[in-house]
Amino acid sequence: MTRIVIIGAGAAGMSAASRAKRLKPSNEVIVLERSRWVSFALCGIPYYVDGKVKELDDLLFYPPEEFTKRGIDLRLGKEVVELDPDTKTIRYRDIKSGAEEKLTWDKLVIATGARSKAPQIWPEIRDASNVFYITHLDTAKMIRDYALAIGPGKRAVVVGAGYVGLEIASALAALGLKVTVVEALEQVAPRVVDPELAKVLEDNMKSKGVEVITGAPVERFEIVNGKANAIVTSKGRIEGDMFVIGVGIEPANDLAKQLKLQLGKSGAILVEEHTLTSNPDVYAAGDVAEHRDLVTGQMVWRPFAQVANKMGHVTGTNLGGQESVFLGSVGTSAFKVFDIVVARTGLSKSEAEKSGFRPLEVSIEAGVRAHYIPGNSKMTLKVVADERSGRLLGAQAVGFDDSVFWRINTVAALLTTKGTVWDLFTADYGYQPLLAPVWDPLVIAARLLMRTFGEKPR
Amino acid sequence: MTRIVIIGAGAAGMSAASRAKRLKPSNEVIVLERSRWVSFALCGIPYYVDGKVKELDDLLFYPPEEFTKRGIDLRLGKEVVELDPDTKTIRYRDIKSGAEEKLTWDKLVIATGARSKAPQIWPEIRDASNVFYITHLDTAKMIRDYALAIGPGKRAVVVGAGYVGLEIASALAALGLKVTVVEALEQVAPRVVDPELAKVLEDNMKSKGVEVITGAPVERFEIVNGKANAIVTSKGRIEGDMFVIGVGIEPANDLAKQLKLQLGKSGAILVEEHTLTSNPDVYAAGDVAEHRDLVTGQMVWRPFAQVANKMGHVTGTNLGGQESVFLGSVGTSAFKVFDIVVARTGLSKSEAEKSGFRPLEVSIEAGVRAHYIPGNSKMTLKVVADERSGRLLGAQAVGFDDSVFWRINTVAALLTTKGTVWDLFTADYGYQPLLAPVWDPLVIAARLLMRTFGEKPR
Repeated sequence: MTRIVIIGAGAAGMSAASRAKRLKPSNEVIVLERSRWVSFALCGIPYYVDGKVKELDDLLFYPPEEFTKRGIDLRLGKEVVELDPDTKTIRYRDIKSGAEEKLTWDKLVIATGARSKAPQIWPEIRDASNVFYITHLDTAKMIRDYALAIGPGKRAVVVGAGYVGLEIASALAALGLKVTVVEALEQVAPRVVDPELAKVLEDNMKSKGVEVITGAPVERFEIVNGKANAIVTSKGRIEGDMFVIGVGIEPANDLAKQLKLQLGKSGAILVEEHTLTSNPDVYAAGDVAEHRDLVTGQMVWRPFAQVANKMGHVTGTNLGGQESVFLGSVGTSAFKVFDIVVARTGLSKSEAEKSGFRPLEVSIEAGVRAHYIPGNSKMTLKVVADERSGRLLGAQAVGFDDSVFWRINTVAALLTTKGTVWDLFTADYGYQPLLAPVWDPLVIAARLLMRTFGEKPR
Repeated sequence: MTRIVIIGAGAAGMSAASRAKRLKPSNEVIVLERSRWVSFALCGIPYYVDGKVKELDDLLFYPPEEFTKRGIDLRLGKEVVELDPDTKTIRYRDIKSGAEEKLTWDKLVIATGARSKAPQIWPEIRDASNVFYITHLDTAKMIRDYALAIGPGKRAVVVGAGYVGLEIASALAALGLKVTVVEALEQVAPRVVDPELAKVLEDNMKSKGVEVITGAPVERFEIVNGKANAIVTSKGRIEGDMFVIGVGIEPANDLAKQLKLQLGKSGAILVEEHTLTSNPDVYAAGDVAEHRDLVTGQMVWRPFAQVANKMGHVTGTNLGGQESVFLGSVGTSAFKVFDIVVARTGLSKSEAEKSGFRPLEVSIEAGVRAHYIPGNSKMTLKVVADERSGRLLGAQAVGFDDSVFWRINTVAALLTTKGTVWDLFTADYGYQPLLAPVWDPLVIAARLLMRTFGEKPR
């Protein structure tokens, strides 16, 4: 019998646990989790805040009982105090009672995820009851309850215009609050799309009544009587009744440091394709680990849920006795706020340049359905390809239709198989007037690229 | 100056014309078209019938004036009488006046599309004013006008449960008619999806009040006083007030025969990848031509609009002096009737067997969005891959969400680049709870396939 100890019961941890137990029932699988939640979906938080989802429990992939039924020894409310790599011993304590216990492992999985840097960046918020940053599922309830308590018409200030910030902003607006989004960089969605696409998004947010202030790093919070009443930014003071911080996460790598695991440049744990760390008995998966970017070949840190699930799955498969690899991702991300969809995959032109490619970019506006179908709208699409090889490098898009997301997904699939601009042209997309135009935006972009790359595949 | 004569002003013909003129303005480009329509979209017909599209003109990609402005000599209402390959001469007549003219070509493009076999199969319908089959855009108006004239409550009988028949059936139902769909084969959508997926579609049609009769080939129409009042099938007599035939098209290859062009097994013109026929001065594009299936490598006849547009584009590019190729398609097709979406790409398991592959198939039911998002629904997805190589061979799906279509598109892209089951797992699909679940149905299918194919890429 092999004892596998998994630290962290999020997507990666529970995927690993389920798989390790199912493939090899003789495995003893113990999961230690600090919170009371398992297999939780932090991505679902905005939909609890806005009321689409009624119960926090609904955000769980499975309830704890399900894992117990699978023969997994789930220990909730347990915080790891110390890991000793030499004796392979864990010391952990019960969050409530403080009682400590010890446990040895044969194989260890670090799946501790990411954590907010907010309380380090702005220590003053530790004492403020109306400043929120996402730690666990409970944050969703805290934000919603507070927003409902202060009621419509009050102002919520959201720090950070990445997808977390924007989705929370949209949820708070749905509750009737006035919302201000404050972003340190010069555009919204700075790590997702280029400035001209971000502009479409920003205009849409503004048209929905959301105030958007960019290029305004938050210097500090003004706290009075245990509550923040304003933030001070480089562009001045912004008052609010509640504050949500949607930026500044980092890999939760303390335990990795205790184990002296090799870390990547990002501070996340370096793993090879089986998700094994520099310690041959320790795996790492999910937001605490790096993985390979399949376009550049470089190791990257992308705390995305799908990656976490797949990495956990791969970890668990290996622990279950079947060789499995996680090859990497191409950095696909997407979000929907109000009626606008924003998505990207692969590299932007400037990222491609930095990675040593010779990128060529096309940008188009094109209809998402047949031109004669009512409800047709235009999407903005950029596609980047390498001039030397014709290989696709990335795409980003924004528009008022879910198909924006799906078209980027299709490019993501082509990036995974190292597809070219000619593949983008040739790929036999379905055509149905209600769903897509006969000249799909992807094909139009391919045609434009082929003007430079040549009509015929090299 | 090169004189290019193009016969047929549909998608393929007009794509070729536009491209040949734009890339090389010295080209003289003459298009002969029998009808009064150019760059028409027959796929849009159901949406004129049901009233979503108000004017037939709206179904044109561009109006005739646009092509004239581009310097194309557009001659509408002209029917080709004879082609002489030796003198490279066309004789054609004006449909209205009957006056004949002659024209010589340097390069000829056959883009005559497909035509209905209905009047050959059932000669009696030639005299019936209430039996319709799709020839040109005008058919849309004829069907709609007749349906409105007889009014709600009357019965329309649609012959053929392929996508044309089903979309027309849905349009007629939207006008308030009682609708019966009669199909010769044992299932609806017989060339699109396997029986068990067709069953979901059939049940949905029935739940909307459409009567569906399968396994009932139409032997003849009963005509009384210039009107059909019933069809006689192997399963009995079916009465109706109007009849629409949605099956039985064939390549319009008469002119190709006059030119003694080599034809494929389907009867459509055999072309190589530049769309050149067996005559070095004659190209063929669109529904009149075959093209290569990129999964099997075989030549196939697929009268699909996107293929036609791309083939015309390639033809025109070559005529414009730049080498261009149409590599082929993977047979993606899709339709949406009522609230159900049906899509397929590549090969079914039985098609794959016939093509010499050793196919393995998985079939799943999986949610289209995050499980906690209201409006989530399940789709049925089948994926087929080759046991020898792990290469993806095809996929088909049915469900009540447009994402069914987009997921099949993603597989289509992977088929184009000869992707494997491991690529299907690795492909970095975007995840956003409102749009897709963290374990996308495509990844779930990949995981199932990997149980047999092996967890690790070969």
